[in-house]
Amino acid sequence: MALGEFELIDRFFRDCGATRTDVVLGIGDDGALLRPPSGADLVAVSDTLVEGVHFPVGSPAESIGHRALAVNLSDIAAMGATPRWVLLSLTLPRVEEAWLAGFARGFGALARAHGVALVGGDTTRGPMTIGVQVLGTVPAGEGLRRSGGRPGDALFVTGTPGDAAAGLALIMAADGSAAGLRSDAPVDALEALRQRFLFPTPRIAEGEALRGLASACIDISDGLVGDLGKLAAASACAAVLDVDALPRSAALAAVTPEAALRSMLDGGDDYELLLAVPPAQVARVASMPGLTRIGELRDASTAARVTLRRRAADGTLSETPATGAGFDHFAG
Amino acid sequence: MALGEFELIDRFFRDCGATRTDVVLGIGDDGALLRPPSGADLVAVSDTLVEGVHFPVGSPAESIGHRALAVNLSDIAAMGATPRWVLLSLTLPRVEEAWLAGFARGFGALARAHGVALVGGDTTRGPMTIGVQVLGTVPAGEGLRRSGGRPGDALFVTGTPGDAAAGLALIMAADGSAAGLRSDAPVDALEALRQRFLFPTPRIAEGEALRGLASACIDISDGLVGDLGKLAAASACAAVLDVDALPRSAALAAVTPEAALRSMLDGGDDYELLLAVPPAQVARVASMPGLTRIGELRDASTAARVTLRRRAADGTLSETPATGAGFDHFAG
Repeated sequence: MALGEFELIDRFFRDCGATRTDVVLGIGDDGALLRPPSGADLVAVSDTLVEGVHFPVGSPAESIGHRALAVNLSDIAAMGATPRWVLLSLTLPRVEEAWLAGFARGFGALARAHGVALVGGDTTRGPMTIGVQVLGTVPAGEGLRRSGGRPGDALFVTGTPGDAAAGLALIMAADGSAAGLRSDAPVDALEALRQRFLFPTPRIAEGEALRGLASACIDISDGLVGDLGKLAAASACAAVLDVDALPRSAALAAVTPEAALRSMLDGGDDYELLLAVPPAQVARVASMPGLTRIGELRDASTAARVTLRRRAADGTLSETPATGAGFDHFAG
Repeated sequence: MALGEFELIDRFFRDCGATRTDVVLGIGDDGALLRPPSGADLVAVSDTLVEGVHFPVGSPAESIGHRALAVNLSDIAAMGATPRWVLLSLTLPRVEEAWLAGFARGFGALARAHGVALVGGDTTRGPMTIGVQVLGTVPAGEGLRRSGGRPGDALFVTGTPGDAAAGLALIMAADGSAAGLRSDAPVDALEALRQRFLFPTPRIAEGEALRGLASACIDISDGLVGDLGKLAAASACAAVLDVDALPRSAALAAVTPEAALRSMLDGGDDYELLLAVPPAQVARVASMPGLTRIGELRDASTAARVTLRRRAADGTLSETPATGAGFDHFAG
């Protein structure tokens, strides 16, 4: 890129993130010099967003900036870590001042909200690809993993899964007629769903609070059933999900019950935390705000990795295996 | 991508790098858990390679894998740091087993040669973009910067700058007739130049050895004159380059003296280290293998940021400002 373009980019990003005293040397040299606290493990995460794959072509720049950082902060949260520093690798087909300003606004606001300093990265010309790496810390040995769950552990989730997937469906339906949309859906609810896709909330405080309490943790980026399957597999367990217990946002009433259930079980992009909690810690976790108990881990000898359980009209509990795509099997 | 593709990628990269005891948790969770040594500063670098921008379309996969890691290791070297961990974000238009095998071979061989563990990253479908982040460490406060040079410091360079640019010109000239190529150039020399572009050598050992000796350091990725200008500017100095002292590889004799000089001064992709050394340390640095003294820093009050100095046929020294594109001004 021309020097003028580099200077333009530099102007938008030099003061974009938080200011931290543990940044010995930030942007502008061959690398950043950072001073981790003693007795800490470092947590490193990396996620790349490609236009047309991870967000619709033409998405608002502010949302792209927010999401590029949020998906990485969500991984930091899933490890129970505290984010400190971020590197941004921005590949852009062209340099547009308004787009850069919007991107930096979305990225910077989220970085500053979580006290994260932008310490490096690079800018390249090419198809729009946004690579972000976040570095955080946890007290040594206290990082949360997917693999610590045991049979009998309760399952909890933060927030209200399914909103982001419903929001994305609304955004992708050019004429506004997304599948499953109720004709009488209030405008506020539609907007709320869209916002959950465009500006997801990384659950940093929840992840930090769960250190020493959760036995296993994962963030829901690929859908609740799919990511529960990964947590259960890493923990060498099976899992049962109480479908009737799933927390449901008021906004999700904008779509039919069938579409809502599909979004909750299989929709992606929520960036909520899904965690296992040993019996001794359940009362304490249940008292935390924003967490809902939704099932339990069980012995892996049962046939399905993930089983969906719900109460029929006659009061009996039914169980259905949810191997692979959860909802399709459940509907049978 | 389909699950089978993920599994294929996983197979190539799971054991790709070095094994390290300071990796608490590697690939396969939401993030990596790493244990830095106490009393160390962390060095974080990030560089992205885009097909058709940073390497020719159709480059050998093994070279792409090597270069993606090498350019980042070179930044680590320029900070005087020791590399430890790497994250790889691979965006690919399609999954081809032979390509992946070649890429992993080039990336993995260099990672293992420097004891670097591959601890995370992601794979995405899209236009070929390779994002790499390397984390290293230096004893706290000992990281090399661009900004520490002072007037009177000597300038040194590792290796023989210019080879990679000449090699790239040969690769880009489809019919083999690169500009400046001598008709009698030996085949070995041409191959040697190509190899310097395809498989550059990050100067990790040299960077580590220069801690406490060099006052400033930068790696030459954009050309010697341009990167010297950056070091001089960051150090609030001017610089003079002794053109006759520039180390020249035997292979560079394959091109005309004019083309060779242009490559040495303005060619990129060398990934050699350029450094300033205070007078008290010059003798020690001059005794190190693979380093050549090529000039000095002077007071910034002189007109040009970088001045080219050389001895004419009559024995007199002439100086020419090298503002901007060094060689063009020098030729005048």
